[in-house]
Amino acid sequence: MTVTEVSIREVGPRDGLQIEAPVPLSEKLRLVEALVATGVPRIEATSFVSPRAVPALADAEALAAELHRWPGVEFSALVAGIGGAKRAVAAGMGTVEYVVSASNGHSEANTRSTTEQATERIGEVVKIVHDAGGRVEVIVSTAWDCPFDGPTHPDRVLRIAEQAREFGADQFSIADTIGTATPGRVAQLIDAVDTHVGDFNLGVHFHNTRGSGLACALTAVQHGVRNLDASTGGLGGCPFAPGASGNIATEELVYMLGDMGIATGIDLDASIRAAGVAEEIVGHAVPSNLLRAGDRIR
Amino acid sequence: MTVTEVSIREVGPRDGLQIEAPVPLSEKLRLVEALVATGVPRIEATSFVSPRAVPALADAEALAAELHRWPGVEFSALVAGIGGAKRAVAAGMGTVEYVVSASNGHSEANTRSTTEQATERIGEVVKIVHDAGGRVEVIVSTAWDCPFDGPTHPDRVLRIAEQAREFGADQFSIADTIGTATPGRVAQLIDAVDTHVGDFNLGVHFHNTRGSGLACALTAVQHGVRNLDASTGGLGGCPFAPGASGNIATEELVYMLGDMGIATGIDLDASIRAAGVAEEIVGHAVPSNLLRAGDRIR
Repeated sequence: MTVTEVSIREVGPRDGLQIEAPVPLSEKLRLVEALVATGVPRIEATSFVSPRAVPALADAEALAAELHRWPGVEFSALVAGIGGAKRAVAAGMGTVEYVVSASNGHSEANTRSTTEQATERIGEVVKIVHDAGGRVEVIVSTAWDCPFDGPTHPDRVLRIAEQAREFGADQFSIADTIGTATPGRVAQLIDAVDTHVGDFNLGVHFHNTRGSGLACALTAVQHGVRNLDASTGGLGGCPFAPGASGNIATEELVYMLGDMGIATGIDLDASIRAAGVAEEIVGHAVPSNLLRAGDRIR
Repeated sequence: MTVTEVSIREVGPRDGLQIEAPVPLSEKLRLVEALVATGVPRIEATSFVSPRAVPALADAEALAAELHRWPGVEFSALVAGIGGAKRAVAAGMGTVEYVVSASNGHSEANTRSTTEQATERIGEVVKIVHDAGGRVEVIVSTAWDCPFDGPTHPDRVLRIAEQAREFGADQFSIADTIGTATPGRVAQLIDAVDTHVGDFNLGVHFHNTRGSGLACALTAVQHGVRNLDASTGGLGGCPFAPGASGNIATEELVYMLGDMGIATGIDLDASIRAAGVAEEIVGHAVPSNLLRAGDRIR
């Protein structure tokens, strides 16, 4: 059931940089340039959220205006509500990720809405984006665990998946927002989602906060998942846990999958170089072990 | 084929500390005390090698003399030759790990012997240890890749396994010495060893140098392996790659396996506390992500 080819989405410019001190637009574009050079097919470029909440991404419109430089890459932007979706569409983003927290604790803390209220909005987001000719991906955050509510019941994820399909979303992903997932629970949720909405071309998003990130990614691929998020250098550590690891590192995922004969279309050397650029522009060590160790002798 | 119960061997006091600045014996004993409190069944306590080559473990005899304090734990020591085996036995070690490099480049750099010469010595090591009533585990280092020779042909590992059995060794393990293994190659080698010497109760030893350590451990367990090495806090980074991650972290392995319903007999909270002790005694941050992030809400 293991797939032989996957599509990695690079989320460093958004999920990676959002908790960092703001980086100049020119530096972000240098990072995007380095990422495009790796051959990665999809890049999450920014998010359209409150600049007060996420000052690091306050330049979303300015960044979006530069993405025409790389016509071969699918760029996406994350939004958490109607206002963000309108801004993303106005900025010319072709793919909009609308995030819904599966747990009420996280949902209310981030968007002042319950999971049910946020789910109800999928229809409006889809209409706004489809009217502009774009695609909508619904991403379920806290899909396994919530930092406030603890374990998320899988049924809460499945209900969002069903609603996402009814409302006409184009894709569906599940995110381990706080890096607590482990392979057994990953397999269970993927299989359950597949049973409910198997035609959705499921995506997964893992953090390495407790060390199991690549093990979860491996499990996802073994359970037929073809769309994986990863962040250059492993950027994306939690601001409330200094030193804590962030997203799974793109170059580490490329190393592991490539060594297993699973094609990503990404050049490992270029991916390591991009992680070096990421480290330069954030100005501190990034979590990636591979960045320090380098490739193996072939 | 996934097992439901594994036996973790804690290698922090040996593989973890060997590249650190020497730590006082009293501090090592404090670490062993904290590790024993986690419930771990086996601890690699030290190695009997040249004190010039590994000054951090020059107190091997003195440490061994204190291990009677914890009669319920199986302590082992690593040796690289006949002299070390004699010292280990004289110091009262019940389990002796004799390490053989599967690649000539690594073997000659570490022991000035070829793989074949080191393999031939298994018989003498077994005699010395068995005569004293002890057990011998043969550990194959550079089982997947050598830092000098590149990829190790699996046949080189299988030949050592066959010889180890002929010479009467009690157990057999394969080690990813430089942290380059990935799940596909792990599965292949484990299956090959099982086919050759399946009655050997195979052990595995992974480093997280390129991020795939826990994914490899997961794969091993899925392929029926019951004996896994891990190091508290992920101690064991390479001295030639500052900041590079070391062994897989015991508490991260316990977290992952426990969350999957695979019993280790190790208490996660105590394991996290032990990693904190490890960090204290080495005096710098250790690689474990879980140590910083903590357990998830249950």
